[in-house]
Amino acid sequence: MTEIRKDPFTEQWIIIGTEDEQEFFTSLASQEKTEWKVCPFCPGNEKVSGREIYALRTPGTPADSPGWEVRVIVSKQAALQIETDPDRRPEGMYDLMNNVGAHEVIVETPDHVKNLSNLSVDQVTKVISVYQSRMRDLEGDRRFKYSLVFKNQRKASKYRLTHAHSQLVALPITPKSIKDELKYSREYYSFKERCLYCDVINQELKDTKRIVEENDFYLALTPFASRFPFEVWIMPKKHNCDFLRESPESLNNLAKILKGSLLRIEKALDDPPLNFMIHSAPYLREREGYWATIKDDYHWHIEITPQVFESTGFEFGTGSHIEPLLPEVAAQILREVKL
Amino acid sequence: MTEIRKDPFTEQWIIIGTEDEQEFFTSLASQEKTEWKVCPFCPGNEKVSGREIYALRTPGTPADSPGWEVRVIVSKQAALQIETDPDRRPEGMYDLMNNVGAHEVIVETPDHVKNLSNLSVDQVTKVISVYQSRMRDLEGDRRFKYSLVFKNQRKASKYRLTHAHSQLVALPITPKSIKDELKYSREYYSFKERCLYCDVINQELKDTKRIVEENDFYLALTPFASRFPFEVWIMPKKHNCDFLRESPESLNNLAKILKGSLLRIEKALDDPPLNFMIHSAPYLREREGYWATIKDDYHWHIEITPQVFESTGFEFGTGSHIEPLLPEVAAQILREVKL
Repeated sequence: MTEIRKDPFTEQWIIIGTEDEQEFFTSLASQEKTEWKVCPFCPGNEKVSGREIYALRTPGTPADSPGWEVRVIVSKQAALQIETDPDRRPEGMYDLMNNVGAHEVIVETPDHVKNLSNLSVDQVTKVISVYQSRMRDLEGDRRFKYSLVFKNQRKASKYRLTHAHSQLVALPITPKSIKDELKYSREYYSFKERCLYCDVINQELKDTKRIVEENDFYLALTPFASRFPFEVWIMPKKHNCDFLRESPESLNNLAKILKGSLLRIEKALDDPPLNFMIHSAPYLREREGYWATIKDDYHWHIEITPQVFESTGFEFGTGSHIEPLLPEVAAQILREVKL
Repeated sequence: MTEIRKDPFTEQWIIIGTEDEQEFFTSLASQEKTEWKVCPFCPGNEKVSGREIYALRTPGTPADSPGWEVRVIVSKQAALQIETDPDRRPEGMYDLMNNVGAHEVIVETPDHVKNLSNLSVDQVTKVISVYQSRMRDLEGDRRFKYSLVFKNQRKASKYRLTHAHSQLVALPITPKSIKDELKYSREYYSFKERCLYCDVINQELKDTKRIVEENDFYLALTPFASRFPFEVWIMPKKHNCDFLRESPESLNNLAKILKGSLLRIEKALDDPPLNFMIHSAPYLREREGYWATIKDDYHWHIEITPQVFESTGFEFGTGSHIEPLLPEVAAQILREVKL
């Protein structure tokens, strides 16, 4: 029985109870021990991988069969369910709701390759346009307040499903980290009457020392207060709060800089474990006042976070980080990588 | 050159630049590859481990020599320096300061054992009282706003320094996760005129299903919205915002329940990697108004967070968590562990 419970101490919503006791101890024991013998994401295994929600495929080929270029399926480990109502309710002093939401897997290519950066710019553009299509489709469901695209890219291992894929969740709440970003960008806007992210972009273009890569549409940089070594953010140069409003031409430029940034990180750090997340504005079209504010003061972006050291009690206890490498040093190394 | 930089997007302060390029790649390459041949924390190796700041030791034995029961030293990987001024300053639109602070290591026992739970209740009481002494001593330094005790306990490995130890940092800022706790507990207090944590304790004592262990002074429970499987919080039953104000009798009870909770988690999960952190009120004695509020609405506690699964892009992108196991199930398993 999965629920979404509110932590009364931090106001964060937690998705909880996706496994029972037996399932939990089975997945704990099989971690890094069970080999993947057949890749469920390779063409021909569509019946194994899960029901197809959407695909870019050769006209005339049926769903759940080969012929696709990018394929979106229901996650086999879905933490969220589409067929339920939120039913927000109390339990004593606590607050909870049902695990309503969408949890989808985007298989990025029919080829059995591990990294998004292994794909051509054309293919990466297709993947990103599929992100946009799925987020736009889920926007129509008024139960959802936010959708997040994220990717967990890991080292090659026979114990891991390493066929390139990313994930999408649509949530009945706006996550706390996004709420925080909205809050601070609004505070900045109230004070300066300018977008915080636009100001950062302007300063970075002037300073140049933290720039990793740049094109007409996008800037890739190591943030001034990076949390992780070789963390890279990709931001649209033209103010825009919403990833869904980027044009096809912009997505092609995004594919180039995303592929380039990932390749640079992978070469500098010998293909490290990494994550990336698209931070875009929440779904709140109907509340025009709220929307009008976010439109001016928020700025969508991608955060790429390599994970080369494990988290410590310092991170858990403070929410802060001890980041060994200055972002100026990381940016220089990344700029000098030969692609 | 280490600095403390403010992330403009989240208002979090990050400690950054503890290593240069060469040191970074050396520590990355030696991770899980360099064996510990001599334990620097064992008696006889005091000159290797670092300068002694404080110790419980046999009267007459000199500092930096055997004869101690608990020993506090300057961290060899100190991210913070005591001999500097904060010098808060701007850099363009950004904010930064020097890495002023204290970073100490508490060696919990002269015996070469790995876990705090391996020690006697008497010895754990001594360790906790040393935490208190060090935090109280650092309170005298007005540059410090907050001190955090934390522990990273890992699996046995010849590549790790596994002689039982914990760490203490004193910081020139109040960390964001603590600010958030203060903010939400204050909001709750304004609304209810009761302490949020006291209300949680009362509800948990009534519900009983999330209780792990209990004594006259403390309650150990799995939180309603646990972030990690088998996460356990220890809270004083009597309202108190400040760990430093607990009596010696209370510390002895704390030692019992901390040892018991750790043992239960270690037996249930086969000695997993885990962290614990003491969340106590910030150092703000001089600002009496602020202090008076925190005194009523904040409630110090310990958070124990086992780490059996790696973090994913979902966690990084939302700040939320997908927690497979219900805390009620974890609490029952922990209660049934034979000590």
